Parts: sequence; C-alpha cells; structure tokens
Amino acid sequence: MLDCIIVGSGPAGVSAALTLRANGKSFQIFGSAELSEKISKAELIRNYPGLSNVTGKVFCEALQAQLKDAEIPIMEEKVSGVYALKDKFSVLTNEGGAYESKTVILACGVESVRMIDGEEAFAGRGVSYCATCDGLLYKNKTIAILCTSKRLEHEIGYLADFAKHVYLIPMYKDMQLDRENVTVIRKMPQKIEGGMRVTGLRFPTAPAENVPELLEIAGMFMLRESVSPAVLVGGLQTEQGHVVVNRKQETNLKGCFAAGDCTGRPYQYAKATGEGNVAAHIVCEYLSAQKED
Amino acid sequence: MLDCIIVGSGPAGVSAALTLRANGKSFQIFGSAELSEKISKAELIRNYPGLSNVTGKVFCEALQAQLKDAEIPIMEEKVSGVYALKDKFSVLTNEGGAYESKTVILACGVESVRMIDGEEAFAGRGVSYCATCDGLLYKNKTIAILCTSKRLEHEIGYLADFAKHVYLIPMYKDMQLDRENVTVIRKMPQKIEGGMRVTGLRFPTAPAENVPELLEIAGMFMLRESVSPAVLVGGLQTEQGHVVVNRKQETNLKGCFAAGDCTGRPYQYAKATGEGNVAAHIVCEYLSAQKED
Repeated sequence: MLDCIIVGSGPAGVSAALTLRANGKSFQIFGSAELSEKISKAELIRNYPGLSNVTGKVFCEALQAQLKDAEIPIMEEKVSGVYALKDKFSVLTNEGGAYESKTVILACGVESVRMIDGEEAFAGRGVSYCATCDGLLYKNKTIAILCTSKRLEHEIGYLADFAKHVYLIPMYKDMQLDRENVTVIRKMPQKIEGGMRVTGLRFPTAPAENVPELLEIAGMFMLRESVSPAVLVGGLQTEQGHVVVNRKQETNLKGCFAAGDCTGRPYQYAKATGEGNVAAHIVCEYLSAQKED
Repeated sequence: MLDCIIVGSGPAGVSAALTLRANGKSFQIFGSAELSEKISKAELIRNYPGLSNVTGKVFCEALQAQLKDAEIPIMEEKVSGVYALKDKFSVLTNEGGAYESKTVILACGVESVRMIDGEEAFAGRGVSYCATCDGLLYKNKTIAILCTSKRLEHEIGYLADFAKHVYLIPMYKDMQLDRENVTVIRKMPQKIEGGMRVTGLRFPTAPAENVPELLEIAGMFMLRESVSPAVLVGGLQTEQGHVVVNRKQETNLKGCFAAGDCTGRPYQYAKATGEGNVAAHIVCEYLSAQKED
C-alpha cells in the first residue's frame, strides 16, 4: 500500500510530490504530463519567488524538469473517486485502475467553468463524470455531454459508440469529432431537470436549428479536467466549492489533506506550492504517528 | 503613509514584496541586502518548486535578481519595535528611523539560538535588543552582550564606547573586535538574574579564567539577527515562540499579518513564500475595505 496518493499535477501537487520524495515516502501523483493547462496558458508570472517574470510555459517546463530530476512520473489516469475506508483510501480511475494508500492529498484545482443548475442534485442519478465508468448504462439511450477540454475528446467518442444519440456541448476550441449520432450545440445549458433521475436538459432558448429548448435525455456527462472535490470524495466538507482545511491542510476526513486552488483564494502559484509542501509534511507526521500506534 | 511595512527579507518577506508590487501598493521591506544568512548557507534545496536542486546561494541570488527586476530596494535598518496605533502602525529602527504604515507583515523568521532563562521576564528591565536605543543608559556601567552575527559587531563597538566594562559572548566565528574593556567569553550563559532590574548573569561553571560563575551586570544586550516577534510587537499573540495566525495570515492585531518561519513549522521555503503571498493578498483586501469605510 502506498503512503500517499496525490490527486492533481498543478503546482500544489508537484510541490507535495517533491517533498514526499525528499522524505522517502512511497506515492503516486495523478494528473497530466503537461501538468496543468491553466499554467501553460499564463502569459506572465510576476510574483513567483525564484523565477522572475517567466511565462506559464517556462514555469511548467521548470516543474517538469524538476520532476524528471527527482524521478517522479505522473500517472495519466483520471481519478474518478476517492473512498475513505478504515485507515486507508481507495482511489479509482476512469481507466479502471484501483489504488490504495494510507493518505490522500487533494490538489485538484478549481474548475473555472461553473456548475450547472441541478448538477450536484442529480450526481449519481443521471449526472456522471466518468465515461468509462457509466457509459454502458446509457446503451441505446439519448445523452448529453458537456466537455471542457480537447484532452477528453476520446471519452466523447467512447460514449457515442454506445448511445443512441448524443447532444454534445464542447467548451473548447478545435472540436474534431465527426459522428452521425452526435448533434453539436454551442450554447451553455441552463438547467438539468428530472424527478428521481435526469429526464431533460433545458436551454434558455432553442440552442440550434431543429433543437428544442428542452432536450429529453437519460443521462448527462460532465467531462471536465477537474471534478469538484465534493463530488470526488464523499463526505468531504466544502464551502462555496472550496475544500475546508485548517493551517495543517487537514480536511474533515482523517488522512485526507488538500492543497492549492481547491482550498480557496488567492489562486496563486506560491500559495499552491506552499500548501502542497505543508500537506506533504503533515502527511509524514501522520504516517509516523500511525506507526507508533 | 505607506500601505505596508514588511519586517524581514527572507523568502516570506520577498514573496510578500513581489505581490504587493504586482498589486501597485506602496511599501518598504526591512532586512538585509543578503536577504537571509540562513538561506545562503543552505547546502541543497531539493523541494522548492521551480528551482531544481539548487544551493541556498543560487536561490538567494535568484531572489535578489528578482527584487532588482521589480525595483524593490531592501531597507537595511534593523526594526527595533512595531507599535499598533489607531488604524496605523509606527515602526522604529535601531538606526533611529521612524516609519508609518497602514499594515504590517511580520516575516522575521525564527531565531535558531534559543532564548536565555530570564530573558523574556527582564525585557525592558535591563534586557535590551537595541544598542543605539538603550546604549546610553549604561554609560560607565558593566554590561554583558550576547551577539549571534558578525553583521552586528559594530553594535558591540558602539556599546563598548559607553560602558565601563563589557562581557561579550560572541555566537559567531571570526570575531575581530579588540577592545581593552571587553572580556570575551565563549560559553553560553545559564540565566539572567535580578530583582526589579537585571543584576547578574549566571553560568553553569566559571566561564573563563578569572571570570566568576555569576557576573555582576547592570544590563544585558541580546544582539540577534531576528528578534522574537512577541518582543518586537507588544500585545502580539504567540504560542511557543511562534506568531499565531489563521489561514489568512491574520494575527490577533488588526492590520498586522505574519508569514514564514515565524508562524511555525515546517520551516520550508515553499511554505514561507506561500504565506508571504497570501499575507500580501489579504493586505490588499484589507486596504480596499478601509477605503470603503
């Protein structure tokens, strides 16, 4: 069993990984080899101590080189759920992976796209965040997909293979998918509707030619780079979408820590790396205390 | 009046300064052009995100270059006291300077030399941290000086000019002072003694030839690179020598923030820069709120 699993490869996750490595702990960091789309796109970073006026790309490359020096590979599987068991955590991925660790550091960032009305209410009742986990449930049914990143386009293809029809809302440029059973909509939906389960997706006005304001759907897939921490980890205390932590980066769940943008403003690189560092130190203390028990 | 005064030029202070500059605030940062002796001496930094396996010297030079790029000069006066007045702070220096600001960020680090028994109890009653402030009080009297840094050696000379006799305990290498009225002692004292005021300094055993276990002194000077935050700022809440702060880096004093090692472990660069960044952001919020009042 691993000492720790880090969810997210932004500055907070990378910082935690470097410190866990320096302290000889066993861990896996889940994220993307590009680390973070958000950083790469940063034009100019004026206040990260140690790197003067660098672009996000340069900062990203510095972190990638540092991970390579420290021999820390990034697991490119997408974490779909973190489950707190007795004295350990089980982490499942969209790719079907299952991992166990003594502790978890959530460094999953904040999603800049806001949640859709009804999304949280219908999570697990027609709203899904994982194509491979839930795709089969919608065989021959009509579904809608909101996708925020080109990196997740293959998941759309996967879902289109099963579904009877797909309404696709791509929130990224350069959409290249071309399937007969996919209708592309370039408008933000207003609300997910239903009773016990999702039955419809409502738009403020008809979103495209021959497409009504209210789409009849059996399921709604939210394909985002980052999933809201509360959806990812059952029972996690959040406040206005941010994970509640104390000065030790402890969440309300024993052994589960959080760092970086997901814990709240300011959304800053220095704050994120600082919190990742602290979280990793407290993980080390936590593991030592466990050993003594 | 300044928007902010930053006390300390280690990673936390530098980080706060860069962020205040990026936000167009007026401020002064007090410290040393070398930034921090402690950093410069660090052999290898393995876990500061963005700089892979650098020496402390390289890290220090990177910060210095960055301050130069941002046109932030370091005020080399040594802060001797921070006084909370109504809606502002008055900051006094050993060099006689007096500065006013709306907010203060304490980034004064932790003193690795532990306090001496009796030091806190006799502060202001014979124990002094400032040669130029209190030197004249000890004209023709016998005093003891504990000095932790070569950079402060000139203050010893200043005190020796007034005092009848000086017992000097230098805690650094390469002591070069040579005065007739100075007796050098290379042992740590055990305890400061006295009644209403300091009367003696006790050693576990006779500290040198012809020097007794109990020195009769009228005053004890503690010349350290950093002064304990509780001594620096009256009424500041501390716990085991660390400034008590919340997640916003707020202390118990309105408008007074703290960041870096002075707020507690882990003593890490990333933690320090992160906290400096957050403190500066909260200072900006605080200043905006003041304006609205």
